[in-house]
Amino acid sequence: MSNNKFTTISTIGRQGLIQKIADSYSDSTNEVPVGIGDDAAVLRKNEKEFGLLSSETYTEGVDFDPTFTPMHHLGAKLLTAAVSDIYAMNGKPTAILINLAIPNRVSVEMIEQLYKGFQQGCKDYDCTISGGDVSASHGALTISLSVYGVVEQNKLVRRKGAKIDDAICLSGDIGGAMAGLRILLREKQHWQDSGIEVMEPDLSSYQYVVQRQLLPFARKDLISGFEENNIVPSAMTDISMGLINDLSNLCRASEVGAYIYQAAIPIHLETRDVANELEEEVDKYAMFGGEDYELLFTLPEKDVDAFSKKFNDFVVIGKINVQKNSVKVQLAEGDIWEFEDGKQKI
Amino acid sequence: MSNNKFTTISTIGRQGLIQKIADSYSDSTNEVPVGIGDDAAVLRKNEKEFGLLSSETYTEGVDFDPTFTPMHHLGAKLLTAAVSDIYAMNGKPTAILINLAIPNRVSVEMIEQLYKGFQQGCKDYDCTISGGDVSASHGALTISLSVYGVVEQNKLVRRKGAKIDDAICLSGDIGGAMAGLRILLREKQHWQDSGIEVMEPDLSSYQYVVQRQLLPFARKDLISGFEENNIVPSAMTDISMGLINDLSNLCRASEVGAYIYQAAIPIHLETRDVANELEEEVDKYAMFGGEDYELLFTLPEKDVDAFSKKFNDFVVIGKINVQKNSVKVQLAEGDIWEFEDGKQKI
Repeated sequence: MSNNKFTTISTIGRQGLIQKIADSYSDSTNEVPVGIGDDAAVLRKNEKEFGLLSSETYTEGVDFDPTFTPMHHLGAKLLTAAVSDIYAMNGKPTAILINLAIPNRVSVEMIEQLYKGFQQGCKDYDCTISGGDVSASHGALTISLSVYGVVEQNKLVRRKGAKIDDAICLSGDIGGAMAGLRILLREKQHWQDSGIEVMEPDLSSYQYVVQRQLLPFARKDLISGFEENNIVPSAMTDISMGLINDLSNLCRASEVGAYIYQAAIPIHLETRDVANELEEEVDKYAMFGGEDYELLFTLPEKDVDAFSKKFNDFVVIGKINVQKNSVKVQLAEGDIWEFEDGKQKI
Repeated sequence: MSNNKFTTISTIGRQGLIQKIADSYSDSTNEVPVGIGDDAAVLRKNEKEFGLLSSETYTEGVDFDPTFTPMHHLGAKLLTAAVSDIYAMNGKPTAILINLAIPNRVSVEMIEQLYKGFQQGCKDYDCTISGGDVSASHGALTISLSVYGVVEQNKLVRRKGAKIDDAICLSGDIGGAMAGLRILLREKQHWQDSGIEVMEPDLSSYQYVVQRQLLPFARKDLISGFEENNIVPSAMTDISMGLINDLSNLCRASEVGAYIYQAAIPIHLETRDVANELEEEVDKYAMFGGEDYELLFTLPEKDVDAFSKKFNDFVVIGKINVQKNSVKVQLAEGDIWEFEDGKQKI
């Protein structure tokens, strides 16, 4: 290597590296009207529609733990994560490409189970497995998904576009995926300590949160709700990295700020129970936990009223304001937490 | 795992696993007219054009060797491999998505070098980096590229479509990438045996083959040649896995057979020299070596004559016949090698 400087990636962080790449390569062209920096790239398609393209890579031991993740659940979950990026642009997924780098200890049967999960996901989200590739890996199982989708041009929603005074809305509830992960990691620890051969924990008291972690569902129903009621959010993204992170990205793209209310953040009762049981703060699950695949979107007040009469699985958690890149959370006790570019100000 | 059967992937092989997946999931839909089983998936775009989508994953230590692969060369090479799949459908690449799973020992500077290679490739092939993602890896650096392209509907060329008596044509020359790899592996062995810290071999006698391995170029010029001369091949694929393999895939898709002449296979003089020096058979490099990224295509005789007057970097190596899935190679000495489904018949 002729370049002798060695800056570790942890110095600038994953987000810093992505930003560095985005800053250098955020070209838009006639064929690619929107490039890096949103949930999906936007491609020229025809006079009425855009194409949407997104891809993600998942590495065993980093992004998933094979100890407690059955292969068919893994396939379905990764498919959910992939299509969620298309829904976050208000589009519909149509084609999925799947690339696998497979180590020796993975069997043909395991890959078949994985594909059963992919296929279930394709059925749920009306898309098809349309290609991909298979290669070897000396280490971890690595799975890359590319998803292509379509959106009518006048229905495209980006992270950019939130307006001052828009309501900040959130579908479903959040923090559940993290609560589920906490329980699964605890059970894994018990199992490892016990020396028993097979991990078969009793998870019956944790069904909701474990399902949120292992088998989440992307909000196709919300996108259909928008379509049926002629609602187009001013901005949108999905909850993949955690509310504060994802809201900060939406604010940065829209050049606005956000003020949200802790008390308004939707949290499932079982998520609260898990936090209590583990003596952790449920608000941290909700604000910083990722992988819920709910949709975070902004709407003018008038649309909120109209839409809430037709679709009831969303809540308003706050409002957009002029304070660029600032996300403020008013806690139930009255204190305010402030985040700038996703980092807490002290 | 409830399923206790464990069939290793080596039992059925990479190609067997891909075939198994393709057989189960080769749906075509209104949105995806051509799914699994060609160089790229074909997507509905507009009345005149199709979209094309392809993706590949490369794992350090399996698909590339960081000892002798500079990061910027690696970026450019992987981009070449990605766009080659689009050219193989007679299309033009427009957008690239890049996913990285990065281990700790890779620095920010190394990633910047890698992106310089991607950017150079995008410049060469008129496309843009339009998205992707970055995650961590505990083991190998893993790189996935998704490439989107476009093709006029009446210019789409598939593996399927070769007709009886069509000429089998090949651009450039082949076997060079494998010759380059042989030299690099030999130099790596010398270096490891020597105990010297930095690997700096004298490769001046091997410039052509080393470039074919480290910095190959996809045949954009041939696709332009087809366009300018109103030629549409009856079938096409790229040389990524080796002539016999890739020709066998084309024959299977087209439900035809092939008869080719060893003496007609284009091999560079330096490729021959390397084989002589290493006391290996150059025909094996040419028939089974991959990664040349030349294009293999079929044309009716009348088009061959017309096109060869306008574009001179291709040769005819044989002819399509009725013997389904059979590839025969007539050796210079008169013997015939026969392959069925890519496997040699003895």
